[in-house]
Amino acid sequence: MLAVTILGNNSAVPAFDRHPTSQVVTMDGELFLVDCGEGTQIQMMKYKIRRSKISHIFISHLHGDHYFGLIGLINTFGLLNHLQDLHIYAPSPLQEIIEWQLKVARTTLPYKLYFHSITKEETLADEGKIIVKCFPTIHRIECYGFSFHQKKGKRRLIVEKAREYEIPVAFYDKLKDGADYAKKNGELVKNEWVTEDGPPGKTYVYCADTKYDESIIPHISDADLVYHETTYLDALQQRAADRFHSTSKQAALIAKKANVKKLLIGHFSSKYDTLEEFETEAREVFLNSELALEGVTYRV
Amino acid sequence: MLAVTILGNNSAVPAFDRHPTSQVVTMDGELFLVDCGEGTQIQMMKYKIRRSKISHIFISHLHGDHYFGLIGLINTFGLLNHLQDLHIYAPSPLQEIIEWQLKVARTTLPYKLYFHSITKEETLADEGKIIVKCFPTIHRIECYGFSFHQKKGKRRLIVEKAREYEIPVAFYDKLKDGADYAKKNGELVKNEWVTEDGPPGKTYVYCADTKYDESIIPHISDADLVYHETTYLDALQQRAADRFHSTSKQAALIAKKANVKKLLIGHFSSKYDTLEEFETEAREVFLNSELALEGVTYRV
Repeated sequence: MLAVTILGNNSAVPAFDRHPTSQVVTMDGELFLVDCGEGTQIQMMKYKIRRSKISHIFISHLHGDHYFGLIGLINTFGLLNHLQDLHIYAPSPLQEIIEWQLKVARTTLPYKLYFHSITKEETLADEGKIIVKCFPTIHRIECYGFSFHQKKGKRRLIVEKAREYEIPVAFYDKLKDGADYAKKNGELVKNEWVTEDGPPGKTYVYCADTKYDESIIPHISDADLVYHETTYLDALQQRAADRFHSTSKQAALIAKKANVKKLLIGHFSSKYDTLEEFETEAREVFLNSELALEGVTYRV
Repeated sequence: MLAVTILGNNSAVPAFDRHPTSQVVTMDGELFLVDCGEGTQIQMMKYKIRRSKISHIFISHLHGDHYFGLIGLINTFGLLNHLQDLHIYAPSPLQEIIEWQLKVARTTLPYKLYFHSITKEETLADEGKIIVKCFPTIHRIECYGFSFHQKKGKRRLIVEKAREYEIPVAFYDKLKDGADYAKKNGELVKNEWVTEDGPPGKTYVYCADTKYDESIIPHISDADLVYHETTYLDALQQRAADRFHSTSKQAALIAKKANVKKLLIGHFSSKYDTLEEFETEAREVFLNSELALEGVTYRV
């Protein structure tokens, strides 16, 4: 099951018990962290995220509300004697910022830290059941969105066919994995005779910080779930444009044009003490829009 | 009134709803921040600290649990359009770490940020009613404690004497400020004839992270309130020594030897889910010991 849990849904300044950006994408027990604003490790404890399961962290850009919590998390992993490799994907200056802070503290981590510099649209990771890609967005500084593609599911068994070929039940799991079956008489039963394509893999896309920009549509087209920022309500469209952010209606318009199944909206400005209006405005344009609320897990 | 409010009382890893180190020292409406672990700005909101009143921040050392929240606070001050100068006193590598992070985000602050590099025992600030000094402690890396000295109070008026010299009541406030009074006939009434010394100023000392070290005693002698770290209980004395930290009993012994009036203990290891035992152990050695609890303000 592919899902995303929101740890922080606010923009630059924490306010109204909303925190800077961070999300955990989970795929059958594997955890991928997306952005890591200040206090992310504390939010993880609050929402009982199994942080020891995190081995890949994706940082969209180097505005503090998206990464100031990373050094603390890296440090805590060390103190908790986390031994698993940790891979960080981010614009390149991050590596030096982190390494410098470790150096002045004379910290030696008990695990290996790998920095992967993001510079362009590409596939970042191909891990088990998931592929993670990135694409540039238009923001004040270099910034990337991330898409999580669940690989196609196992093949679906056509039981009556399998029986017809007298394949033992004990072999059914191998059939689902795509194996052919060799009968005792030497005859080969081809996998495609007794199975059919499994369900398509699901896709979740995190669009990071961005101004209204239709050039991201190819990256989110037909996605099952898309998170798009909505720093401002529609009335502040000019401010959004000036600051390279989006409004509720702009996020919804992108979702509509990209024919996505569902839209999550977040990255709310601390100007707003309540959020309902964001959902109302987005739904006027794209009905299946929902607020990204902290502590809530959204199944893709 | 001199007081200290605890924002974080835990050591390296946040745990059990305890946060990394940060405290606010207040003196008649002026706020001084001492250390700034991750999440300090969020703790400030929780405990309604008037962060706009902060213009001096003292960072004891560059272990993350004492400064990872600083860049977020500096950034937030900028976003909230704080205009007052901000002075930061810390070991020197901090300046470059902060400036680099501002640079990669292309952040221009609307206020002036002054870094003051601490390198030795000295007077750091002499602000209004308070003097702040620092002194080195023995820790794994360069580390400093801070002492806050309230200046002597106003002079105390001896009313019968003032009446004897026929000084008008309207001039009494000036007498308390130390002024002489010139009578109409030209006769001068010396201030010391009609006033006496005001109450002595109070002193609060923050001893930062330190192993058991009697060389700090001259800096805390006779202080009204002293905060000393107690990362471990007495049973882990060896671990405390190995890691350049102190135990409950060691903190209390220092307080006793320095003849301080009251001891606050904090910087608890995340090994401990409850804290009562720290207070019990400290009180066996120095009775006026108290746990530093988050959100609580201790009057000096």
